[in-house]
Formats: sequence, C-alpha cells, structure tokens
Amino acid sequence: MNQNLKFEGIYPPVTTPFINDELDLEGFKANLKKYAAAGVAGVVVLGSNGEYVYLSEEEKINLVKTAAEVMPEGLKVIAGSGCESTRETIRLTNVCADAGAHAALIVTPSYYGGKMDNRALLNHYFTVADNSKIPILLYNVTKFTNINMPPKLVAELAKHPNIVGIKDSNGNMAQMGELLELVDKDFSVLVGTAGALYPALTIGAVGGVLALANIAPYECVEILNLTKAGKHEEASKLYRKMIPLNKAVTATYGIAGLKAAMDMLGYVGGKTRSPLMPLTQDQLTELEKIIKGAGIRTE
Amino acid sequence: MNQNLKFEGIYPPVTTPFINDELDLEGFKANLKKYAAAGVAGVVVLGSNGEYVYLSEEEKINLVKTAAEVMPEGLKVIAGSGCESTRETIRLTNVCADAGAHAALIVTPSYYGGKMDNRALLNHYFTVADNSKIPILLYNVTKFTNINMPPKLVAELAKHPNIVGIKDSNGNMAQMGELLELVDKDFSVLVGTAGALYPALTIGAVGGVLALANIAPYECVEILNLTKAGKHEEASKLYRKMIPLNKAVTATYGIAGLKAAMDMLGYVGGKTRSPLMPLTQDQLTELEKIIKGAGIRTE
Amino acid sequence: MNQNLKFEGIYPPVTTPFINDELDLEGFKANLKKYAAAGVAGVVVLGSNGEYVYLSEEEKINLVKTAAEVMPEGLKVIAGSGCESTRETIRLTNVCADAGAHAALIVTPSYYGGKMDNRALLNHYFTVADNSKIPILLYNVTKFTNINMPPKLVAELAKHPNIVGIKDSNGNMAQMGELLELVDKDFSVLVGTAGALYPALTIGAVGGVLALANIAPYECVEILNLTKAGKHEEASKLYRKMIPLNKAVTATYGIAGLKAAMDMLGYVGGKTRSPLMPLTQDQLTELEKIIKGAGIRTE
Amino acid sequence: MNQNLKFEGIYPPVTTPFINDELDLEGFKANLKKYAAAGVAGVVVLGSNGEYVYLSEEEKINLVKTAAEVMPEGLKVIAGSGCESTRETIRLTNVCADAGAHAALIVTPSYYGGKMDNRALLNHYFTVADNSKIPILLYNVTKFTNINMPPKLVAELAKHPNIVGIKDSNGNMAQMGELLELVDKDFSVLVGTAGALYPALTIGAVGGVLALANIAPYECVEILNLTKAGKHEEASKLYRKMIPLNKAVTATYGIAGLKAAMDMLGYVGGKTRSPLMPLTQDQLTELEKIIKGAGIRTE
Repeated sequence: MNQNLKFEGIYPPVTTPFINDELDLEGFKANLKKYAAAGVAGVVVLGSNGEYVYLSEEEKINLVKTAAEVMPEGLKVIAGSGCESTRETIRLTNVCADAGAHAALIVTPSYYGGKMDNRALLNHYFTVADNSKIPILLYNVTKFTNINMPPKLVAELAKHPNIVGIKDSNGNMAQMGELLELVDKDFSVLVGTAGALYPALTIGAVGGVLALANIAPYECVEILNLTKAGKHEEASKLYRKMIPLNKAVTATYGIAGLKAAMDMLGYVGGKTRSPLMPLTQDQLTELEKIIKGAGIRTE
Repeated sequence: MNQNLKFEGIYPPVTTPFINDELDLEGFKANLKKYAAAGVAGVVVLGSNGEYVYLSEEEKINLVKTAAEVMPEGLKVIAGSGCESTRETIRLTNVCADAGAHAALIVTPSYYGGKMDNRALLNHYFTVADNSKIPILLYNVTKFTNINMPPKLVAELAKHPNIVGIKDSNGNMAQMGELLELVDKDFSVLVGTAGALYPALTIGAVGGVLALANIAPYECVEILNLTKAGKHEEASKLYRKMIPLNKAVTATYGIAGLKAAMDMLGYVGGKTRSPLMPLTQDQLTELEKIIKGAGIRTE
Repeated sequence: MNQNLKFEGIYPPVTTPFINDELDLEGFKANLKKYAAAGVAGVVVLGSNGEYVYLSEEEKINLVKTAAEVMPEGLKVIAGSGCESTRETIRLTNVCADAGAHAALIVTPSYYGGKMDNRALLNHYFTVADNSKIPILLYNVTKFTNINMPPKLVAELAKHPNIVGIKDSNGNMAQMGELLELVDKDFSVLVGTAGALYPALTIGAVGGVLALANIAPYECVEILNLTKAGKHEEASKLYRKMIPLNKAVTATYGIAGLKAAMDMLGYVGGKTRSPLMPLTQDQLTELEKIIKGAGIRTE
Repeated sequence: MNQNLKFEGIYPPVTTPFINDELDLEGFKANLKKYAAAGVAGVVVLGSNGEYVYLSEEEKINLVKTAAEVMPEGLKVIAGSGCESTRETIRLTNVCADAGAHAALIVTPSYYGGKMDNRALLNHYFTVADNSKIPILLYNVTKFTNINMPPKLVAELAKHPNIVGIKDSNGNMAQMGELLELVDKDFSVLVGTAGALYPALTIGAVGGVLALANIAPYECVEILNLTKAGKHEEASKLYRKMIPLNKAVTATYGIAGLKAAMDMLGYVGGKTRSPLMPLTQDQLTELEKIIKGAGIRTE
C-alpha cells in the first residue's frame, strides 16, 4: 500500500498559542520544531487541544500552512477539519489539503446526538471520504461528543480506500481489541489518550495522538519504542509514571492546564481563548508540583 | 422598563427550508407569514431546529434579514447567535443585530463541557452581554449541550441589564420554579419544550420557544391564552393532547420529522442537511398517523 | 370500582426512626399520628425514605404492623415490598399484607439494569400482581434505580386488575402527561416528588407520595386542596415556596437531612443507619436557615 | 506477609445453578471441580454473576459451605457478602466466614448513590474491615452500582490491614494504573472483566475475577501464564480472540447468556431466576455461533 496512508507513531494534537488573543505563529513554529526533534511522527493541527472550535477559517488555514512549512520531510500534518455538516466538512477538509495537510482527522458530528446513528455516520463519513482530496482518519471522542462509534461501524467505514485509520480517545481496551480483530493491518488504530497508551500498544494499536505529547513528547515516543522492542517492564513503568501528569493536563485542568504546563517546561503555551478560563494560582501551584514530580525530559 | 426587553408569548424556533440543499428563502417567508397570522409573538431564527450548526455565516445573515423584513411590526426576531468562543459569539451577535435581529438567544458553549463551570459561564455571558448591541436571552438545552445552568447562576446573570430572559428546554419544573423565585418579574422565563408548556405556564413562565409551534402554532397560542384566562381544565386537556405529537417531532423523529410534518400540514418543510437523514417510509407513515390523530389547525 | 383500590391524596413515605440504631416504634407512632392529623390520605412504609434497604425482614413487619395499628380507619398503609427477585417480592408483599398493609409499592428491580427491559418488567410485575394478596402500585424512581418505565409499558401493566397505580418520582411532565392519556381514570397516578407536585396536579395526577410530607404535611395537603378548588394562583405560590426546602431534604442533604429537619420541626427524626452519614455542623446550620425561611406549619 | 492475604490468579465469579428455581448444589459442585482442574486460584461465590441479589441468606450459606468443601486445599473461596447497610454487611460477612469463606468481596453500597461519597465509603469499609473475621476485597463495579471509587480513596482504604485487595470491573486502564502507583505491592489488584484482562496484567494487575472464566477458565489462566512468562504476542492474541465471546456472555446477553453458554460447553448452567429472562431462540442461535467460533477448551 501507499506509505502515505500509513499512520504510526506519536502525534501531538498541538495547542494553538495566542498573543493578545491572536495567533502566535512564531510560538507555534517553535513548539513544532521541538516535537519534530523529539521523534514524533507528525502533528495534529486543529484538534480539540488546538481549540479548533474557537478558530476562524482564516486562522485554521494559517496554522495548517505553517505546520506544513515547519515539519520536516516525512513527518505528517493532520488537520482536524470535521464540522457538523457533511458539506462543510468536505469543503474545509479540501481547504486544509490545499494548505498542505497530509490527512484529515474527522470528528463525529454530535450536535444532534440522538440522530447520529450508524446510518447517519456511515453516510456522513463515506460522503466525506468520497470527496476529500486527502486520506481520512476517524475521530471517536465520546468525552467531548457523547457519541461512541461501535467497532462494527468503524470496520465498515474502514473498507473505504480513503478512510485509513482512527483516533480512539475512549481508552476502552475491549472496544479497541474488538476493533483490531475486525480491521485490516493497514488500518491505523491510534489511541487518543496517554492514559491508555501502553496497554493500547500491547494489544495492537500502532501509535497515539496524545495531549500529553505536547509536554512529554520524549516519554511518549519512548513508551512506544520500548514496547516495540519488547521491553514491557520498562514501558509499563514509564507509562504508569506518566498517568498522574496526563490526568492533570487533560481531565483535571484541561487545555488551560496543558498550556500552563507547556510554559513551565519551555514550550510556548500561553492563554486559552474565552470561555476557557486560566488556572487559579492554587491550581498552578498544584500543577507545578505534579510536573516536577514527573521529571519530564525537555530535550 | 423598556417593552422591547420583554419577551412573552409563543415563539416558533423556525426551521430552515432548503431547495437542493440551498436556502429556500421564499419557503421561509411563507412559513413566517403563517406563524404571524397564528398569533405568535415572534420567531427564533438560527436555533437548533433551524439547523444553525449547518449554516454558513452568509446564510445566517440572509435568514435574519428575511425574517426582519417579513415579520409584522411588534413581532420579534430573535437570532440564535451563540458560538463556542466568546469573541465569535459577540461578533456574530452584532452581525445579526445589524441584520435586524431584536434579540439574541445564546446557547451555553459546550464543547469543552467539563470546563464550562459557573465561573466560565458567568464570564462568557457577562462579556457577551457587555458587548452586544441587542438584548440577550440565555439558552439552557442540556439535551444538546450536556450543560445545565443552575438557577443560582441564571439569577446572577439576570442582574445584567442586557440579559433579559432565558429559554429553558429542560422541562424540569422544580428547577424552573426555583429560578422563578430568584429572578425579577421582568426577567422573561420561556419554556423550551411543548412537553412542559402548560405546567410551566401554571408556575410562572410567560411563554415558550417551542419546536411544536412550527406545526401547531394555533394550539400553542391557545394553550397560553386559555391558561392566562384561568381556563385550566381546557388548557390542560389541549396540552395533553399535544404531547404525543410533540414527542414525534422532537425526540423520536427529530428535525427531519418536524420538517416532514410541516410538509404534511401545508408549511414548507423539505429536507434537512446531511448528516441528518430523512425519515424512512415506515417512519413517515407512522408520523402521518400521529398527525391525523392530533387534529391540528392550519389556519 | 372498589374504593379500596383508589389512591388519592398526600402520602408521606415515612422515615424510620432509630434509637441506638434499633427501631424506635414509639417515635414512629408519634410521627404517624401527626401526619394523620394533618390530613394525609395514608402513609408509605418501607420506602426509600424509610431506609428500607437497611431493614431486616423482622423490622419491616414490625413497621407495617405498627402503622396498621396507628393509622385511623380509612387511611391507607402502603408497604414498599419490592425486592430484586420476583419470588422474594411476592413473598415479602404477602408478608406485609398479613401484617396489615392495604397495598404494596413495588419498585422496579434494578441491579441488572441492562436486562430490566420491557419484557422483563412486564413479566415481573404481572407475576407479582397475580400472586399478591393486596393491590400493587408501581414505583418508577430513576434517580435511585437508573430504570425508567416508559408510559406505554405502564399503560400495559395498568390493565392488570391488581395493578392500581403508580408513584412516578421522575418529575417529567411530558412523560406523566403521556401516561395520563393512556390509562383509565381509576388508575392512580401519584407524583413522587414535591418538586413537581402542583404542576403534576394541574395535568391530572391525583396526589403525591412526597418526602416533603414528612416535614410539611399541612402544606402538601394544602397545595392539593387549593388546586382541586381551582385556586391556581395560591397553589402555585405555595408550591414555589416549598421548592428550596424540598430540594434541601432530598437531593442536597438526603435522608439524613430530612431526619434532621424532622427533629427541628418537632417530629422524631434521629439518625440514619450507616453507611448514610449525619450532616456536618455547617450543613445543619444551613438547613436550619432554610427551614426557618419556609415558615412551615407544625399543627 | 501472611500468604492467606495474597490474591493472585484467575477467579471465576461462579454462577448459581437452579433446578425448578431451587439451588442445584450438585451442579454447583460439578462446575467448581472443573474450574479447579483448569487451574483457577479460587472462586467468588455470591457475586453479581451468582445472582446474589436473588438469593436468600440460607441459600448463600449453603453455597459458601459447599464451595468450601469442594475446593481443593490452597484454592480460595471468596464470598460476595456486601449489603446496603454497614451492620448487615458485617453480619453476613461473618456468617460467610463461619461457613468457610476465606475472604469477602464487598461491593460498594449504592442505593442512595448520591450520598455514597468518599466520607461514607471510608466509614463503611473501615467499619466492616474492623469487624470482619476474614480479609476484605473491595468491589468497584460502576456498571451495576453507578458508583466509582477513585484511586485515592482505594489507596486510603488499602492501608487497613484487613483490606487486602480490589476487584475493579471498570476496565479503565488509566484509573487502574494510577491505583497501582498508589498502593503497596501486597495489595491485590484484580481486574473484574476479561475485556481488559491482558492489558490490566501488563500494567500490574495480578489476576482477575472474570465472568468469562465460568466458560473459558483454561483460556483465562493461559492469558495470565503467557503474560507472566513474557510471551506478550501470544497473550495478546488469545486475549483479543476472547473479547467477542466475553462481550456476548456479559454486556450483550448477561447472566442468562452466560448460563446458556455454560450448558453448551458442558458446565451446569440452567436458568436464571426471574425477573432475569431466558434468551430467545434467535439469541441462543447467535450465541452458539459465537461460542463455536471461539474454539474454547473444555478440559
């Protein structure tokens, strides 16, 4: 198969730095260069951690273009171009393709959740895949969407030549294991949370799109490499050490916490856009303690 | 107080008709004229039933402008201009104001649901209200957003002079009753579902924004008028008769069902945009039976 | 129809007083006499507020016997005799009947929630009703069971001559309204929360089984009487005034709060059994403030 | 430490066979002998799969006694003796101890779910542990109880000398990994679902209490042994193969399905008690296909 359709390795779903609430493209570039140096396989731009729901289309295009310029040859730029409507998803995906994205990560539409059944999702994704200039990765993130794509639906979608993988953020191993039994080897199953990284790799996931990789790309890459090398004990140990940090920068403190952690570790974090709120001073103190305890590599 | 800030009566959150997937403004006008004739107090444009998440900004402006032209003097045009970000909500609200909207219905941001706590929502709504050219109605719709604004938060927001009411779609009478005890008389509490219309009116709601009013505006207005006139038995009877129909065009069949029902009753319904799917033939047959059983007035 | 099968009016689901963690039957009697004097139609013994899940069978029998002795002629004693298994439910229901219960309130079995579908519930309730010596009231309380019986299922069950009513604690007016349209007039629909009391009465409920009636029986009875007399404004006003108090002794502070409130108002409350915990001093202070604000009648 | 306090290996939470709705102790013995031969470390009697909520106390004692007689020296009998009240839990646990149980598996009380906070659960479990004659295993099963014990609470409870482990059925790897970092090595963390068996073992769980072990004890034991031997690829492969079967006899078809599968594979399954319903013929046919596909060892 076409190697451009294969998605393995660690992908940070990169945050979007702002200065005075406007895009900070220099900060964005600086982060991407660091991630590339850490051994990631690419980046996801315009993901949930990138505050994509707060970005204008112009900003989205700017971010994709910048990522495509900065990322070294061979590393992938994946754009989060899913919209609520099928037609808008197609349009934006192709706009991102023109801006340099190698693939698109398409979240399940969710606003009319009760109606987003298998019939609707099949039709949505097949229509998008038929009309997209670039390969499609599915994005299953029940925490944000309250939609959960069952393995049989994903396996059905995986038959489409332009649907090449999935980011599954649910962290449910039975569901991921069931999916892995149903799809071909060249369908890329990526785990969407560092909270399940090592277990997912042991059962067959080929990589991860991990918020944690915004602040601990070296450790995320190392967990993958250790597992591939059969060094299970070391992989498991490093994975377990990362869990509290990962929890802090996702469920507990969210994107504001992730960005604050980036600032503490030498990346360009900065503020989120409103209505997301900055951490309180107490939260910052607590976060700093967790980060120091984790002993993260920064180069 | 300024009578322009008072929102009483029945408001259909109007659907958006499409021809070949593009706006059908003539159909839209025809519907609005019928609603005005039925005695509604105004319309909500760009609401959930208007498929606002599938509309481009240009389309949104066109719909608001058209509604402002068509609706008779004294009837209100309320625009659903809530976005995920605070800055985009302000911008779009003022764009809608310039297009002729008399007020804005601002849904709770919800994508980063876990972080949309009272602190975030207070800051969001106060900032929007400070910067909006038109009065703001809050929109609490847990079914779609998985966010529920508690009465104390709403009462705090109600103190802002530019926040003039709420559409509460949850249908929880204890919550609405608690809210009504906490706010001033001139804060307009509108029930957001016909499934709770008459009970909500008996405890103090002053009207409703009701999907059902897209197909049964006469009955919705009559339930309100009967209740105001103290004719509780008749009001209750008509309300109970409407429940199965309301359930069919909301929870059971969704917007596709609502639009199909509009077609059956002489309004311009048409198709939804994808990924929403049309009803199956079996569903249409079932819906037709329910509509016939309800004996809806169409003029 | 047999008047013994008609359940109208206000029923406190009475708490179970303990002294040194053992039944305090004298305290229990004292409470029941006060409720009878306040105009209730009967009492529910062994309900959720009675901590039935913490009671031995011997204690249950004692409580039913005592209630049957104390309650004046014409007032009903309803026993909460629902168990997880069908056979145990039948056995305990008939034990309660022999102890003097006039009817049984049978909660939906819920432990294997995913399997408690319509087929299972129909079979359960019909088998219980076939074998019970006393009439059955269904008990739908999703807050505790995570099971919700849809109106069509209840209407099907209502056809059984020994299933005579329902306590619906969900407070969803559309669901209750739909049910009322489907059942005969002599099937008693009782609302299970004071948070929806007056609205439920306006749409056709004939009474309520209300935790609040443990501390405010006079007010609960008055809301019912005012509504029956067509004095809607007064009924609505009194209902809204009760909401914060009801919330305090149910969702906020639970049974420990309800019992503490009883102590404050001259009833015999006392402690709950473990693992339920007593209120903290701060919670007690807050509760006292709410009770004083409500101006409850105690005779 | 005392080796009697160490719980490693595979434990089937055994079903309870009935003949004419009464205990079938001979069938029960036959199953237990087969499990012992398959290499399990013990059995859990009176668990969720044992329909403990449908059993009388006499039946519970009979089952524990029988298991204690039948199980070979060195294999453990764990009794599910958790009740809603603290006092009843203590009493029943000691009754089970007297009947021969080596340890007790104590489910979180759940009926008054909203009040089962950390304070209540700490008090409940410490009081039970203080008064139990046998060691205690915690049981966290949110699917049935809607209660989830956070790792910090479990770690606090793990300090008690008589609380020696946990069965965690949630299958959330991040939560289990976080817990494993917080507790001592001699606190036994057992995974409670085969859907997460191999991943849980890779991160540090020392065994499992698995419904699947009622029909596939050899495979469950083999997954454990392969993982301990560092044969990750084989372990992962066998684990993934078991997922569809496990899903069929748990989430999809429940205990009735598990018992039907036992009958198909030469164990004594039989019927469940009501209100659990038998599978339909279509469901049986589907289940048979899944079992044949899985190629389960029966000796």
